[in-house]
Amino acid sequence: MVVTNVHVYVKEDNVTDFIQASAENHRASVQEPGNLRFDVLQSADDFSKFLLYEAYETEEAAAAHKKTDHYLKWKDTVADWMAKPREGVKYTVLCPAERSGW
Amino acid sequence: MVVTNVHVYVKEDNVTDFIQASAENHRASVQEPGNLRFDVLQSADDFSKFLLYEAYETEEAAAAHKKTDHYLKWKDTVADWMAKPREGVKYTVLCPAERSGW
Repeated sequence: MVVTNVHVYVKEDNVTDFIQASAENHRASVQEPGNLRFDVLQSADDFSKFLLYEAYETEEAAAAHKKTDHYLKWKDTVADWMAKPREGVKYTVLCPAERSGW
Repeated sequence: MVVTNVHVYVKEDNVTDFIQASAENHRASVQEPGNLRFDVLQSADDFSKFLLYEAYETEEAAAAHKKTDHYLKWKDTVADWMAKPREGVKYTVLCPAERSGW
């Protein structure tokens, strides 16, 4: 199981639109085969900073996400709203070690 | 619902011990009232960097975690293994918006 933390920096004027587009992406992403979580979080200190917590059963399932229609739509939709490029940080999962814990 | 991302930097010689102590803390933390997740992750790029993804129903439940016996034991156990101080980053939860999504 793998997790990618995607840090997203949004132009302040586009925060509301970004939240709406990301909620739509969330709803579709959690239906993907192999998806474990797709949490959308907003920084408590800066309303224009977001974190996407993307957990998948395998590297292949995580890679497949980037080929889905909903991801590609989200990517295009939010492109002009980025204050700077997104940063993805990869992790391996230690706990919960069992699939049933997800 | 709130999430704290705790970034942990461990001395290389203590990584194995840290994983064992954190797995024990994970097992107890997910039993706390109000806990939603307590994921323990290891950086894919640096085996000595870890992320604790701590999600709680309320700020009060998150604060109560720091008074539990298992947290205090973990804190004492890992103290000498830190390469530098931990960093906690707070988020508010946008998705899943419903408790049932956790």
